[in-house]
Amino acid sequence: MDELFVTTVVASWKQVFNRLDERFALLDQEQLQKQVAPNKNRLVYLLGHLTAVHDRMLPLLGIGERLHPELDEAYISNPDRTIADPLSAADLKKAWNEVNTAITSAVEGFLVDDWLKKHNAVSDEEFSKNPTRNRLAVFLSRTNHASFHTGQMALAK
Amino acid sequence: MDELFVTTVVASWKQVFNRLDERFALLDQEQLQKQVAPNKNRLVYLLGHLTAVHDRMLPLLGIGERLHPELDEAYISNPDRTIADPLSAADLKKAWNEVNTAITSAVEGFLVDDWLKKHNAVSDEEFSKNPTRNRLAVFLSRTNHASFHTGQMALAK
Repeated sequence: MDELFVTTVVASWKQVFNRLDERFALLDQEQLQKQVAPNKNRLVYLLGHLTAVHDRMLPLLGIGERLHPELDEAYISNPDRTIADPLSAADLKKAWNEVNTAITSAVEGFLVDDWLKKHNAVSDEEFSKNPTRNRLAVFLSRTNHASFHTGQMALAK
Repeated sequence: MDELFVTTVVASWKQVFNRLDERFALLDQEQLQKQVAPNKNRLVYLLGHLTAVHDRMLPLLGIGERLHPELDEAYISNPDRTIADPLSAADLKKAWNEVNTAITSAVEGFLVDDWLKKHNAVSDEEFSKNPTRNRLAVFLSRTNHASFHTGQMALAK
């Protein structure tokens, strides 16, 4: 029963990820320059942003070192169109896949107890007060964050 | 341990719901007429759409009869601006709260086994082949659906 609970949570992540992945796969370098709406983020910014945010999940969930810290300045610390894109579209898509493959394969090995361990941005003291600040909470929050930006991408034609 | 897993899942739903709720609460009848981007859905359409989709969760999760089936025609079956809004902004906000309160209080009483029961849009046969088609899957999917539209709402100024 526990296993099925975990499988269902990971299936939800994969569904969100696959939808984004299909969308990104269809876009070439030029199409990625489109904005989701007038004066809003470019698609490539959202691809970079999601890759960087997911890359940060590796240390946060205690499943590995970061693979692409070079994306943070352009896609997390600064708004769109203020810093040059650090990677080509092809390399950014490669990074996106690399990061998500690392996360998916790590969490597929998680047992229920692993999900309920504290994540690495919360202190032992905080966690003992609030045990919902666990890895599952981070994972669900990032799945919803990806859906948030998927909704924006759907507006770009 | 099981209980904590379930609490974390419901906390994620509440977080998404509260963020939307704060956003909708600030908008009056006129502001709700704004579109998220040029020629895209109005905010009131998204509010109606999310209310109708969540209302459908009541029978789907086996936790109650529908409260607002009158919203489907305007906000699910048809695109925005083809059918007159069936409720005033105030009444729609009331419906939104009513529906989400019903869902939250029902799922807060779910035990792990309740989450893993089949939802009501899948046959016994299908479910025996694929037990991830359970209530938890519906709940996570609707949480992500709400995040999808929250991302679009964030674009409207």
